[in-house]
Amino acid sequence: MKLIVTGGAGFIGSHLVDRLITDGHDVLLLDDLSSGKLENFQHHSENPKFKFIKIDITEQEAVKNIFIEFKPECVFHLAANADIGKSAHDASVDLTKTFATTISVLEAMKASEAKQIIFSSSSVVYGELPGPVTESSGPLLPISNYGAAKLSSEAFISSYADTYGFRAWIFRFANICGPRISHGVFVNFLRFIKEDPTRITVAQDGTQAKPYVYVEDLIDAIMIGWKNGKEKINIFNAGNSPLVSVNEILDIILKEKGIPKIQINYTHEPAWAGDIKTYAFDNTKLESLGFHPKYNSLEAVTLTIQKIADTLD
Amino acid sequence: MKLIVTGGAGFIGSHLVDRLITDGHDVLLLDDLSSGKLENFQHHSENPKFKFIKIDITEQEAVKNIFIEFKPECVFHLAANADIGKSAHDASVDLTKTFATTISVLEAMKASEAKQIIFSSSSVVYGELPGPVTESSGPLLPISNYGAAKLSSEAFISSYADTYGFRAWIFRFANICGPRISHGVFVNFLRFIKEDPTRITVAQDGTQAKPYVYVEDLIDAIMIGWKNGKEKINIFNAGNSPLVSVNEILDIILKEKGIPKIQINYTHEPAWAGDIKTYAFDNTKLESLGFHPKYNSLEAVTLTIQKIADTLD
Repeated sequence: MKLIVTGGAGFIGSHLVDRLITDGHDVLLLDDLSSGKLENFQHHSENPKFKFIKIDITEQEAVKNIFIEFKPECVFHLAANADIGKSAHDASVDLTKTFATTISVLEAMKASEAKQIIFSSSSVVYGELPGPVTESSGPLLPISNYGAAKLSSEAFISSYADTYGFRAWIFRFANICGPRISHGVFVNFLRFIKEDPTRITVAQDGTQAKPYVYVEDLIDAIMIGWKNGKEKINIFNAGNSPLVSVNEILDIILKEKGIPKIQINYTHEPAWAGDIKTYAFDNTKLESLGFHPKYNSLEAVTLTIQKIADTLD
Repeated sequence: MKLIVTGGAGFIGSHLVDRLITDGHDVLLLDDLSSGKLENFQHHSENPKFKFIKIDITEQEAVKNIFIEFKPECVFHLAANADIGKSAHDASVDLTKTFATTISVLEAMKASEAKQIIFSSSSVVYGELPGPVTESSGPLLPISNYGAAKLSSEAFISSYADTYGFRAWIFRFANICGPRISHGVFVNFLRFIKEDPTRITVAQDGTQAKPYVYVEDLIDAIMIGWKNGKEKINIFNAGNSPLVSVNEILDIILKEKGIPKIQINYTHEPAWAGDIKTYAFDNTKLESLGFHPKYNSLEAVTLTIQKIADTLD
């Protein structure tokens, strides 16, 4: 199948591209390389079934022309602001990189033959709803501009799908980890410890806990949901268990780095405006279609730390 | 209290302005008069507690300066595309008139002292969810760009409220009717019948039915929700009962106009892409705060037809 992947040079997007190429698809990767990296996909550069165009997805007319020319059946839209803390003081980051890119992709679909869209949404659309949340839980009151832009994207994907006859698969990602991860608590802790292995600052009291999905499992989840989700618009929680706390992540890192003891300064403040302390997903819907993660949250965290601890050294 | 009302020259906005002036507030009305009308508010023009500025709310810098200078405590944001059928083929109508105006108002609040926002959302954020829907019902899958822009506005109102310390009251309006109504099935039927009282075209089979709230009751609902909604972000369904079908509306109009018989051509198609056939609200939340509409749906429809039948003659 001819597929476009936006944001395919990023952490999750590049793993998705690997899988789609393995599965024999023709893949056109679109990315502005603002946070994605060439090294995440250059191993495909000699493959005739792979193409890359460097483009800012908000350039609506150019994106439209690419869709008209390449004629994809389906688009995986992952181009977005990836750093939730970055835009707390400036909503324009998420309005542009997450929301405007979605409108641009939808307009390109409308102008071309593409009839399927897979979208990378997020747990943060649920705001501070007590969990475990199902895909039908509400009201949806995001507390970050990042979450608001994801929910707004979902809303227009829904209206375009109905109005123009598309089908859509919306995946609300839990915390995702694995090789090529570019930011977040893993990367921060490893960098801080490299600078000073004697002391570290931890947000809140470190007990804030989240579900972690290993990136290979997430790609499985996307493939299973895409294949088996038969509605016009399919929404899936892509989560995991158990919840892993920030303190546990730090312990695993210290063990991995052979550091017996560190002085911890707890901030008793959120890591950023809009940080959600703890959330839990009900994963029944995707599990009923056959999704069973290979790694639980704790294994996903441990494996990620083992893999990236070296690359950051 | 110093208040700004965006879209205050429109059907609902102008009734709201009447009430806020009666209640003794200082009101600054902002409207581009693209669908609102001078005649809807000119009876306040001599009142020193009333001001009007003609402005397109998407002009973010100008709106910001107005907020900084006027120093409102609260903004009632009603400026929006009001015609749901208009933008089915062009999402930019709702993206601009509904969504961009919301971002503009939120940015103006962030730059000024305004700490409260009241927003006119809509039943259409629920898409085709089976009813009666509560404020927590989901998933929210709007089938019109109009609905998507309302939901996107809700999402950013939520994230700004949390991030910048605002409070918000979001009202999801059922169908609203009353004097000054500018479009919709009432106006269309009356216009068609004026042109040709022997035959009329009716969408679907005419059994599609909705709850109607008389505009004075809606303003009561807003005042009650604003006063008694104590959360940081308050969402309220503003609905009514019973559901009134399009066939019933036509019957009431024929009776009012003294037309004993008309030839009806049923289209068996939606009136527009994204039209929702039937929906019902659970109104428990607003009722528990003391909202009890003076007119039920059928009375609201009848009263509206009696009042506007003359004005359109």
